[in-house]
Amino acid sequence: MSIITLLTDFGLKDGYPGVMKGVIWSIAPQAQIADITHLIQPQNILEGALTLERTAPFFPPGTIHVAVVDPGVGTQRRPIAARLGEHYFVGPDNGLCTALVESCRSSGVPMQFVHLNQPQFWLAEVSNVFHGRDIFSPVAAHLANGIPLSALGAPIEDPVLLALPRPQRTARGWQGQVTLVDHFGNISTNLEPQHLPSTGDVEINLAGVRIHGLKRTFGDGQPGELVALFDSEGKLSICVVNGSAAARLGVQVGAQVEVTQLHD
Amino acid sequence: MSIITLLTDFGLKDGYPGVMKGVIWSIAPQAQIADITHLIQPQNILEGALTLERTAPFFPPGTIHVAVVDPGVGTQRRPIAARLGEHYFVGPDNGLCTALVESCRSSGVPMQFVHLNQPQFWLAEVSNVFHGRDIFSPVAAHLANGIPLSALGAPIEDPVLLALPRPQRTARGWQGQVTLVDHFGNISTNLEPQHLPSTGDVEINLAGVRIHGLKRTFGDGQPGELVALFDSEGKLSICVVNGSAAARLGVQVGAQVEVTQLHD
Amino acid sequence: MSIITLLTDFGLKDGYPGVMKGVIWSIAPQAQIADITHLIQPQNILEGALTLERTAPFFPPGTIHVAVVDPGVGTQRRPIAARLGEHYFVGPDNGLCTALVESCRSSGVPMQFVHLNQPQFWLAEVSNVFHGRDIFSPVAAHLANGIPLSALGAPIEDPVLLALPRPQRTARGWQGQVTLVDHFGNISTNLEPQHLPSTGDVEINLAGVRIHGLKRTFGDGQPGELVALFDSEGKLSICVVNGSAAARLGVQVGAQVEVTQLHD
Repeated sequence: MSIITLLTDFGLKDGYPGVMKGVIWSIAPQAQIADITHLIQPQNILEGALTLERTAPFFPPGTIHVAVVDPGVGTQRRPIAARLGEHYFVGPDNGLCTALVESCRSSGVPMQFVHLNQPQFWLAEVSNVFHGRDIFSPVAAHLANGIPLSALGAPIEDPVLLALPRPQRTARGWQGQVTLVDHFGNISTNLEPQHLPSTGDVEINLAGVRIHGLKRTFGDGQPGELVALFDSEGKLSICVVNGSAAARLGVQVGAQVEVTQLHD
Repeated sequence: MSIITLLTDFGLKDGYPGVMKGVIWSIAPQAQIADITHLIQPQNILEGALTLERTAPFFPPGTIHVAVVDPGVGTQRRPIAARLGEHYFVGPDNGLCTALVESCRSSGVPMQFVHLNQPQFWLAEVSNVFHGRDIFSPVAAHLANGIPLSALGAPIEDPVLLALPRPQRTARGWQGQVTLVDHFGNISTNLEPQHLPSTGDVEINLAGVRIHGLKRTFGDGQPGELVALFDSEGKLSICVVNGSAAARLGVQVGAQVEVTQLHD
Repeated sequence: MSIITLLTDFGLKDGYPGVMKGVIWSIAPQAQIADITHLIQPQNILEGALTLERTAPFFPPGTIHVAVVDPGVGTQRRPIAARLGEHYFVGPDNGLCTALVESCRSSGVPMQFVHLNQPQFWLAEVSNVFHGRDIFSPVAAHLANGIPLSALGAPIEDPVLLALPRPQRTARGWQGQVTLVDHFGNISTNLEPQHLPSTGDVEINLAGVRIHGLKRTFGDGQPGELVALFDSEGKLSICVVNGSAAARLGVQVGAQVEVTQLHD
């Protein structure tokens, strides 16, 4: 078994992800391919990196993640592949793998990066504008076939990494950022349980609105109620029960969120 | 071979369905997975139930249908699995399987339901908000691996069922309801051939518009013409040839439709 | 291995493509299925034909392409299957395979067409409105199982073909047409390198805007800059760096594009 995932900003209407599957199956017919998403906002590398962080860990060891949000395609930006613990990453060297790298670093898991510079593992003809098809898909397929990472390119130690937004301490709590507005309109942040007081009341401040206390799940609030809870990634999330918090609050990724301890 | 289908309201942009595939393949790497849809209207259990009714029967015996439209996730609503004739259902106990149950009942096919209460068949960590990932996907994968339904939970006999809308007799015909407005804008109803006069003229009344008689297929009308025909599920459907009847008539699911016999 | 691709205008919300997979796997459980797209504009046969042209060649020999954009479903239009070089086509006889046929013709590759008229290879019940499910999916599955094309229907030599738009010579260059506006808003045309002067300056005229010269790739322009380049299919494309040329210029498929040699 070899599993390859696809995460891109290519959209669903033009057939670009389908083409990647054709290329992969031409080289590795046994590969199982899962679409993670093709609706990353065009050119939004940070959104791609955060989506990869939320999704990749649920795939089995050995999975090869092809991620292509690639405004620098065809320029000097390097094509890379990496072993990040038990998972592989293939894509442009622009920070898409940042969150996976940080997770490996914080758990001391070994990593290995190569600059893809062996065209014999690419399509015979390489365009300047679609490396997802011409370089990354064939490389992923060769990895799935058992070609070692070291054969695909030259070792590098300096992959491009993004500065991910981090919560900051405040006088009476923490200030974090909105990192995701999902399909339901749920607003997720980079605040985790350790940023909230373990005892006493908490107040959450977002877009001029205050939410008092946390719910355990959606159904613990009334339909239409604005609630805060820990989402499926363990992040503080602001939601409207059976509705869209994003539509209610007009909030976008990057907005500030503050948690404050009220009293013990 | 084991086939697992996914039907959710999770949308396509955030990677939630991809995560479900990762979880399934971590447990049952041989499973073939088909997306039915992830664009059920958020929290619309009835739409999920009706979509499952239209699609599940076309999969082969033994298929496992994971359906997750789950506003009650994390509350007292039970997670369930069921054998419904030759198909399996896994999802929340909120009526999503209603149409499949009714179809089994009307054809006398045996059914078996369990309340999923064996956490050894779930992910090690279960969130309060994403049972599609944490409970339903792993349970489906274990079913695909041959674990019997009876091992996954305790037998129950009282699954939650929805009251599906039913056509009502009128003085000169039947009154039914719109059950689907599809991607093309075709308007499908719960009226079937037995609700239409077998001889004589028929008139269809919807949103203040009258349609006289039935066509056999789209191409039997002129482009732009409003026509009535029996759709691919054998339901009375109101369509605009090469256009959108929903846009023309402004009709939504739940709207009333009346068929009247004009004269013999 | 047998690969089946799906290209339709069925949309993603109603489960129609999922149903096709159920039908295929009921007959050919070993088939690997790739969605090319289900978001062809409803009833737009030309868009389907051009999308198939851009995507099909990247699949391995033996791939079976099921394409269904089918306003004439249920009328006298024939259901067909074809061998086009090393690929198979299954779908309505309305020109969807035009670009593949032209490509075979121009390279002298043999072709074979049959009128599907053997209902034993279809679903037992055939609707008048969903041949993608009832005829084309089962036929593709039987092809994947090794049933020869000649068993599936009677030979024909006159498949319906579209008149694809062709560049025309002008006094100082060529006039072409917009053939695709993609997810990013990139505007692709039917102009290829042979339509551009090999020496000297070139000017591109589209929607009243002039672009001087070509870039090699997106990143060679400034963000927001309107540029012309050869896209991943080798076609002249007009793009906004990190933006949408279609939104900027208000251009749709079919619009005229002119390239002019300025001086040697």
